[in-house]
Amino acid sequence: MSDSTFAHTPPPPYYAVIFTSQRTAEDHGYGTMAETMVSLAHTMPGFLGVESVRETDGFGITVSYWESEDAIHRWRMHVDHLAAQDTGKSSWYAHYEVRIARVERAYGNA
Amino acid sequence: MSDSTFAHTPPPPYYAVIFTSQRTAEDHGYGTMAETMVSLAHTMPGFLGVESVRETDGFGITVSYWESEDAIHRWRMHVDHLAAQDTGKSSWYAHYEVRIARVERAYGNA
Repeated sequence: MSDSTFAHTPPPPYYAVIFTSQRTAEDHGYGTMAETMVSLAHTMPGFLGVESVRETDGFGITVSYWESEDAIHRWRMHVDHLAAQDTGKSSWYAHYEVRIARVERAYGNA
Repeated sequence: MSDSTFAHTPPPPYYAVIFTSQRTAEDHGYGTMAETMVSLAHTMPGFLGVESVRETDGFGITVSYWESEDAIHRWRMHVDHLAAQDTGKSSWYAHYEVRIARVERAYGNA
């Protein structure tokens, strides 16, 4: 399941979680967990899509889209996601920033 | 001026422009123009920062941060940026999506 492509989101308003991160050099099961988390997100109520890019130096941006702040809260508190967040803090990410934003306008060239 | 690093944004609220794009294989001066646009953005009133990542397959995410929707509007309408947008549509991007969002909450591990 690739997330390195465009998300097909509905007309605004909806919500975006902008997750910016710097990976450590350690693996500790990161690749498998990242795929599991993307698959899990797709099953969450209110999930609209995800776009994700990481460069070879380990700096990455993942933007996930959600119907509501409640949907984001449920995703943040999912037990499997909480476990992944813990390992993220302790092993996978040297630094990360999370921004929760309300998408108000959107356009493209498609 | 590297933008493949974290933006140092103030406490919310502020605005984010999430620009997701698929590059074409053509160069047409893209690298130089991209650097020029990042430098220009830094001089714009209300500019707060930018984070940008592109993978080797040409899929990329750039998030720029702004104090207000007015600041975003002025940036979008800057004459040099308009010229870059034109070439972006005609040459550099096979597909792009722009989402304007109001950042309401933010946190990190720093």
